[in-house]
Amino acid sequence: MTDRAVLIPALKNAATRLRIDSVRSTSEAGSGHPTTCCSAADLVAALFFAEMRFDPKNPHDPDSDRFVLSKGHAAPLLYAAWAEAGAFDRSELLKLRRIDSDLEGHPTPRLPFVDVATGSLGQGICAAVGTALNARRIKSSYRTYVLLGDGESAEGSVWEAADAATAAGLDNLCGITDVNALGQSRPTMWRHDMEQFARRWRAFGWHAIVIDGHDMNAILDAYAEARSTRNQPTMIVARTIKGKGVSFVEGKEGWHGKAFKKGEELDRALAELDKQFVAVPASLNLAQQIAKPPASSRPPETPKPVAPPAYKMGEAVATREAYGTALAKLGEADSRVVALDADVGNSTFSEKFEKVLPDRFYENYIAEQVMIGASMGLAARGAIPFPSTFACFLSRAYDFIRMAAISQVGIKMAGSHAGVSIGEDGPSQMALEDLAMCRAEPNITVLYPSDAVSTERLVALAAYHPGPAYIRTSRPKTPVIYSNEEPFSVGGSKVLRESGSDVATVVAAGVTVFEALDAYERLKAAGTAIRVIDLYSVAPVDRETLVRAGAATGGRLITVEDHYADGGIGDAVSAAVADAGFTVHRLAVREIPRSGKPEELLDRYGISASHIVEAVKSVAAGKTVAATR
Amino acid sequence: MTDRAVLIPALKNAATRLRIDSVRSTSEAGSGHPTTCCSAADLVAALFFAEMRFDPKNPHDPDSDRFVLSKGHAAPLLYAAWAEAGAFDRSELLKLRRIDSDLEGHPTPRLPFVDVATGSLGQGICAAVGTALNARRIKSSYRTYVLLGDGESAEGSVWEAADAATAAGLDNLCGITDVNALGQSRPTMWRHDMEQFARRWRAFGWHAIVIDGHDMNAILDAYAEARSTRNQPTMIVARTIKGKGVSFVEGKEGWHGKAFKKGEELDRALAELDKQFVAVPASLNLAQQIAKPPASSRPPETPKPVAPPAYKMGEAVATREAYGTALAKLGEADSRVVALDADVGNSTFSEKFEKVLPDRFYENYIAEQVMIGASMGLAARGAIPFPSTFACFLSRAYDFIRMAAISQVGIKMAGSHAGVSIGEDGPSQMALEDLAMCRAEPNITVLYPSDAVSTERLVALAAYHPGPAYIRTSRPKTPVIYSNEEPFSVGGSKVLRESGSDVATVVAAGVTVFEALDAYERLKAAGTAIRVIDLYSVAPVDRETLVRAGAATGGRLITVEDHYADGGIGDAVSAAVADAGFTVHRLAVREIPRSGKPEELLDRYGISASHIVEAVKSVAAGKTVAATR
Repeated sequence: MTDRAVLIPALKNAATRLRIDSVRSTSEAGSGHPTTCCSAADLVAALFFAEMRFDPKNPHDPDSDRFVLSKGHAAPLLYAAWAEAGAFDRSELLKLRRIDSDLEGHPTPRLPFVDVATGSLGQGICAAVGTALNARRIKSSYRTYVLLGDGESAEGSVWEAADAATAAGLDNLCGITDVNALGQSRPTMWRHDMEQFARRWRAFGWHAIVIDGHDMNAILDAYAEARSTRNQPTMIVARTIKGKGVSFVEGKEGWHGKAFKKGEELDRALAELDKQFVAVPASLNLAQQIAKPPASSRPPETPKPVAPPAYKMGEAVATREAYGTALAKLGEADSRVVALDADVGNSTFSEKFEKVLPDRFYENYIAEQVMIGASMGLAARGAIPFPSTFACFLSRAYDFIRMAAISQVGIKMAGSHAGVSIGEDGPSQMALEDLAMCRAEPNITVLYPSDAVSTERLVALAAYHPGPAYIRTSRPKTPVIYSNEEPFSVGGSKVLRESGSDVATVVAAGVTVFEALDAYERLKAAGTAIRVIDLYSVAPVDRETLVRAGAATGGRLITVEDHYADGGIGDAVSAAVADAGFTVHRLAVREIPRSGKPEELLDRYGISASHIVEAVKSVAAGKTVAATR
Repeated sequence: MTDRAVLIPALKNAATRLRIDSVRSTSEAGSGHPTTCCSAADLVAALFFAEMRFDPKNPHDPDSDRFVLSKGHAAPLLYAAWAEAGAFDRSELLKLRRIDSDLEGHPTPRLPFVDVATGSLGQGICAAVGTALNARRIKSSYRTYVLLGDGESAEGSVWEAADAATAAGLDNLCGITDVNALGQSRPTMWRHDMEQFARRWRAFGWHAIVIDGHDMNAILDAYAEARSTRNQPTMIVARTIKGKGVSFVEGKEGWHGKAFKKGEELDRALAELDKQFVAVPASLNLAQQIAKPPASSRPPETPKPVAPPAYKMGEAVATREAYGTALAKLGEADSRVVALDADVGNSTFSEKFEKVLPDRFYENYIAEQVMIGASMGLAARGAIPFPSTFACFLSRAYDFIRMAAISQVGIKMAGSHAGVSIGEDGPSQMALEDLAMCRAEPNITVLYPSDAVSTERLVALAAYHPGPAYIRTSRPKTPVIYSNEEPFSVGGSKVLRESGSDVATVVAAGVTVFEALDAYERLKAAGTAIRVIDLYSVAPVDRETLVRAGAATGGRLITVEDHYADGGIGDAVSAAVADAGFTVHRLAVREIPRSGKPEELLDRYGISASHIVEAVKSVAAGKTVAATR
């Protein structure tokens, strides 16, 4: 450990270089947030060059300390710090925000030292909870540091993270709030009233330390105090000046998100910063002094084989219950698999996982945002997280799901109680836009099992398919229709009924598969044959099978889904067969539903077997079926 | 005011009746949450029959106190209280959860005494902030009461509401937290540690009162203390027993969301409750004693005429800036119009409204959930709220938007900075799934202006069209293409270019309108004519014009949108023309984008003029264009 009398001037110079690089790179880009970089530069310099243990050339080392920039708009500061540490050449910084550089406007995991994309405020701290939980999972001593903005602290997700970290006693997590008192459009709610921040964090069970965020000695002390604090996370609440180091913008409104203009304005800023270098012993190279993570001899985590499903044909099992069984089996075979829930584990059946693997089950109580955010952090560090709740409440975390897609992290979401088939609880508990929500993202795999066997197979497929995935399960019990050996694939489908004389193809998924099979029997009794497809992979979709079925059934395709009409299976099938020139007739929920018995609701909202029968008769007669709005 | 010695036994009996009704109605329905009703029955009885001023027969009276059941699963208790107050016949309660009754599993505004649908936890308190703000707007003394669950307090949105209420000094808002210590799957995070709740609320600036939630005297005192507290909201933190009154379930796990079985189990519960009635003077009828709201002589709020837009053809104005101008004009003409923002008013241009109408502008800082939630409450009480932020951050409040759709309340959302055309800030700031998100709900009007004139017209249309609406604006400046007198309508579109020899129809909206017009010129120079449609109303969609254009251009339709491929304009057009048998070729963003210049990104992600030119050539030659995943 270097003597502070030597260390502090060196850290001050490092901070000055970070400020200079942040100012220069944003001016070169012509946009960005130099002033918010300047406020946090001292905090980040001390963290990178006197506190964290990491290898700049190998940021993914499993025992390396993590740094999450929750205030993602300070990206230039992050990039400057990694360049200063030696991760890449400093000249790259001047490519900031260019299409040919990975140094984007806000951080994304295109950069090896970024775990999750940030830039939607209040998310980084949730991800940091996840990376801290992962340290426990792999029994590593690595610590997680997360830098938040003061304005950001208004996001409710920050307080979900606060509770989750306290409940788990995450003393390996250290937050830093950069209280520069200025938001985008005006001063923040609490300006420089430091007690407002400290008392909130203390109320939520954190150890809070208030410091001057430009006092290097105080910063180092705070990091040390955080490191030695046991059984609770620490929040360092740092009073800073926005634009610190450039006198003509320091603490001034109207400079948020503005780069200095190249020429006189930039030159003046840089000239001021240049003067702030102080004398240090020439021998001190902070980047070379960075403490490496402890040498680890971690064997790779290799999954054991999982036994095939063990259901009986015709057995009535809700897919949500089969989900729980599948997840527990998978978890026993693979130490990377973890489960998270939001106090509905006895409805989603993640409780089956908790029962056998309590150490890898994280209860988030009723806080869906931190559940998804923590899953992002866990996934970024090698876990395979399955967060579950009622499907409708995943919409609570849509912005997190959006950022998970941008981060390309493998979170495996499970939403139960989809659609009107939940019955009496009413519309607030029915997911009717979840397929639209997940399909909209270009890289989320969307799976929708109809029976217990397909559920178990799809859970395993989701686990090992790269990137984010969503599994939609249903409340009612449904009979097993697949043999335990039946193969499934991402992007596949199953033709359940077919003949040479099918007049139309009915494409169903989940609970509507059974309505379609019922319709098949009724039509068969009346002498009409139809093709029935189980579209268990909603995204990607099995275009080939759909086009083949369309061609074989006169181009007559009927989709039936327990979901609103826009953005779901109707649209997926329609887009898939567009080039073939087939017309898709859609049966879907087209209004806000109400409470009632499941079978009453399926019928009232037009997606029951009798509606399918009518639709088949209608399209076979050359008529159109479904209205659009 | 009745003497407490008389009042309290009467209130106790009222609470017992509420318990009995909650137990009976859920048993009759065969599902529901009787135990969570029992814990809150004393709190609700005192509120309805000794505290609130309201007219049971006219719940929409503008000066009537409001009650929001944030813990929506206690719906049977809410219904029982309104029946007890005389709003409807008590026998209706036994129709709970039936398809032929508006007494749904969770409350919805199908019932006249429900302002907003609840049942997604953590939302009711946000709506309550809105109804409290509305009291200020209309200068009414009405108070807002909101009942939360303890488990619910883990939702971050609760703390967004806490901050928003404190910042506005809402002393007309009183929360009650029913701390029954049991969640759905396990005890809550803090069980009966009342200080955990009180210290959080105090840290967030509320006056907190801890009481025994079954001590009627303490409850009445707490309501009185809240009523006399100035400049800050009050939270009554009430220690209760889940299942209170039915000894064999009191405080027991495993009874969440379970109705008593009809027969012995129900009979035993009812027999116990029946014994809890105490003697009261026969003359005391609490329902008749309910204090009516003060007689009001409020004139209806009638809007003044708004001057037409005043732009010059060709003038370059970003639609987001035109939004601000339009909103300020509308606000000056209509006292019901209010604006909310999440600290980006200088980017969304809601600051233009704030400048002229600061009293009707509510700054929510960086807290999108309470912004949408408060808008729901405002809309339910007669305001026309326009909440605005970056379009991508509306995804933060998707669960609220979903509940606004269920509530059928007229919130008018505005999302700026849509699509890759924002440029250098990168994907975290780009809304590319917002159209999918809003289109999925069956009753949200989705409008997408391309120039300043259409923006101004669409803002006014959104304001007065019933139900929720979403207006999507863009970051770049675009030229004015419509005359100030041009008419627009919900469900309309504009054919911008047409001839008798058009080989294809290009359907665009927002920034892609200008790419389409550019493509038109390039193709025209090469001797090819195309039809160009501005689809400014994305939902509902102008089916007639699209089908006519398709028929006139050989069934060749090309959509081009600054949005992901699934759930947006391509799907909207495809669904609209499906019955006509036309094939839609989609140009849209098909991968996670990165930072870059706007024009570079439009081109890289396949939605620029040159891509349109290529697509036209290709479809005119009979080839297909766009891949699906």
